[in-house]
Amino acid sequence: MKLDLPALAPRARVWVAYSGGLDSTVLLHLLHAQGVPNLRAVHVHHGLQDAADDWARAARRTCRALGVPLRVCRVQVAAAHGEGPEAAARAARYAAFGELLRSGDLLVTAHHRDDQAETVLLRALRGTGIAGLAAMPALAPFGPARLWRPLLDRGRDELRRYAEAQQLAWIDDPHNADPRYARSYLRREIVPRLLRHWPQALPSLARLAARAAEAETLAAELAELDLARVRVGDGCSVAGLLALPALRRRNALYHAWVARGWPAPSELRLAHLDREVLRARADAQPRLRHEHGELRRYRDRLYWLDPLPPAPDGERPWPLRRRSVALPGGLGWLRLARAPAIALQLRFARGGERLRPAGDAHTRTLKQLCQAAGLPPWVRERMPLLYEGDELIAVAGYWRSARAVALGLDPQWETALPGAVVEGVCAELGTHPR
Amino acid sequence: MKLDLPALAPRARVWVAYSGGLDSTVLLHLLHAQGVPNLRAVHVHHGLQDAADDWARAARRTCRALGVPLRVCRVQVAAAHGEGPEAAARAARYAAFGELLRSGDLLVTAHHRDDQAETVLLRALRGTGIAGLAAMPALAPFGPARLWRPLLDRGRDELRRYAEAQQLAWIDDPHNADPRYARSYLRREIVPRLLRHWPQALPSLARLAARAAEAETLAAELAELDLARVRVGDGCSVAGLLALPALRRRNALYHAWVARGWPAPSELRLAHLDREVLRARADAQPRLRHEHGELRRYRDRLYWLDPLPPAPDGERPWPLRRRSVALPGGLGWLRLARAPAIALQLRFARGGERLRPAGDAHTRTLKQLCQAAGLPPWVRERMPLLYEGDELIAVAGYWRSARAVALGLDPQWETALPGAVVEGVCAELGTHPR
Repeated sequence: MKLDLPALAPRARVWVAYSGGLDSTVLLHLLHAQGVPNLRAVHVHHGLQDAADDWARAARRTCRALGVPLRVCRVQVAAAHGEGPEAAARAARYAAFGELLRSGDLLVTAHHRDDQAETVLLRALRGTGIAGLAAMPALAPFGPARLWRPLLDRGRDELRRYAEAQQLAWIDDPHNADPRYARSYLRREIVPRLLRHWPQALPSLARLAARAAEAETLAAELAELDLARVRVGDGCSVAGLLALPALRRRNALYHAWVARGWPAPSELRLAHLDREVLRARADAQPRLRHEHGELRRYRDRLYWLDPLPPAPDGERPWPLRRRSVALPGGLGWLRLARAPAIALQLRFARGGERLRPAGDAHTRTLKQLCQAAGLPPWVRERMPLLYEGDELIAVAGYWRSARAVALGLDPQWETALPGAVVEGVCAELGTHPR
Repeated sequence: MKLDLPALAPRARVWVAYSGGLDSTVLLHLLHAQGVPNLRAVHVHHGLQDAADDWARAARRTCRALGVPLRVCRVQVAAAHGEGPEAAARAARYAAFGELLRSGDLLVTAHHRDDQAETVLLRALRGTGIAGLAAMPALAPFGPARLWRPLLDRGRDELRRYAEAQQLAWIDDPHNADPRYARSYLRREIVPRLLRHWPQALPSLARLAARAAEAETLAAELAELDLARVRVGDGCSVAGLLALPALRRRNALYHAWVARGWPAPSELRLAHLDREVLRARADAQPRLRHEHGELRRYRDRLYWLDPLPPAPDGERPWPLRRRSVALPGGLGWLRLARAPAIALQLRFARGGERLRPAGDAHTRTLKQLCQAAGLPPWVRERMPLLYEGDELIAVAGYWRSARAVALGLDPQWETALPGAVVEGVCAELGTHPR
């Protein structure tokens, strides 16, 4: 049983998640026999079982015999987590692994084909979409490290045969026999009855996970193609989204949402987004707020925003001899080509601001300028304004008065605030944002 | 429980598949109570059970009471079919329905949410991909008619409550209690044990079917986009296919295969196609034959061919006063602008044919001409050649000698043979196919 080790950086460490049970004992022996460099074992000692100390002792014995360095991590499992004791213990284990791993390291777990099949079945019974059905990937990012599951295409029987042939010693986990645990219940009460009628059930379910992962990849690639077609600046064209077939629109929105790093949206939320935001009147400026951020629409554009800090107020004098200042509320940086020769003040819009762009015949309100440039209100409230005394002389990144031009001021706003990028020409007012 | 009847043509008939069991009894009553026009019932009498006559009698009684016309179809179930008695009975039932249905008719079955969930589970246990996991659609084409399953989002319990509230009479199918049948076994031995731990298992599985159907639709739409990009004439560009990511290439090939009307290819077959056909040397002219047709590659083009008849041989005199002839072997038609004024013979290539295209300095072999035009060998062997005595004067659709031009002959070949369409210019020989 040769395991196909992924390419590793020279000093990367290979950590086997080693419980002492059959599966991880086989895994540890296989990797050790292959001479994997920088091999280590990590054993999680959770107070869940009285026998936890015995397990840790056995783990030490095995690792000493193999000459593999062992780390024992003690974890506290928060029992009442609203998720059941299995999930809590799992979360505690992975948190411990996470603390141990450095960039480039490889964490190796002994999940095998039958685990995969059980996971598929568990998820299907609890309710899942295709992404959930994909269950466990063989290789996946894990923080700055990676998580490798090389036994995912081996059945439990095969591992047992190997362990017996090699006369390995392992401990049987009493949890595997406790029917209060969902997985144990499935394994003891359900799976044997399934195998009586469908002897190939476990490999079939594991293969289904692979098919689901592929389907999910295809859906993500279609979303990427569709999003590329509707993307305008740092937003999406609402008309472009609405021109997609409903299912593709939902798929694109789902993947854009997840790509933002937000937890996957529910069906309900996506339906709400479609109905209340995309199909709202163009002047309604609808939004969908949730715990991780919000979607806002301005005219034909849909923007994905992380939670917005309140719009800053007050006045900040420009620091002497400085060419750039960090803006409050994570709004980025304001930069000048050189330190200003006069006293400048930094303010934010409160309403009623006016400016005559150099070369223009008329003075405009900031609101008119922004509307003509298609800049949404949440940008207007957060864009840095440069004042000389009480006179607004530049809106960083967009407009300068004749005075600002004369002073050689060309302030630039570096920001990740969605909607702050302007394309096109503001034909209505004849001014061009720059 | 209002069922949302699909739009129907005026004279379309609505056939309820009516066994007399709980589900179809509820379905029949619901549709009857809604006043669905042209409502009929069809009862399949299969000799499988001794009680089949009783069932048919009960069906007649119910339909008479409702005033719904009933058709009883007797079927013979071919017991040993290599697929189990359930599948054989099902196939016989649907064959009987198929004979009954006219274009535009609607067949309505009583499949409900729990049936859907069981189907998902059965398929997952037997082994399926995402398309199979999609299980039963609510509305689907069925020959020239459609198959409608309006109860797919109702649980069995809901149907039973309705039947009891309405005091309906129904028969319990003894098969439902026979554990030799896979579905009965699942329903009696597995599902109750699942529900003990996962009370929402059935709706969860049914929802998974809907998600799978959506994933399958997305995969098909991505395949369509990808195929449109690699399509050249009536073939696909091999370089274009190979430039796609492996998973998308496989997805595109899978859907092109199925769109051809061929049964879905196995993973193995697609892997073989990728390895042995797409990646073969360009001059190897590789092919993949199977029971429904073949894929052939010629240079950078991949073609999907239905089984090719043998290349015709012999000589056929052009019939007097005729402007067109049907070609042997389903190769299409050969048409002239007018009936020829001289005696012509129709032949097919056997090798060594030569022709000097009008305006060309040199005589070429047919093989040279075809190679220069990018016409694959299976087209060369089947293209209609027009002779005057022993002289080849025209290759229909491609080349004419000076003699054919002088005679005003401009033969055209109308054919669906893949690869027979030529685009571009044959720079090598300086001749242009027309």
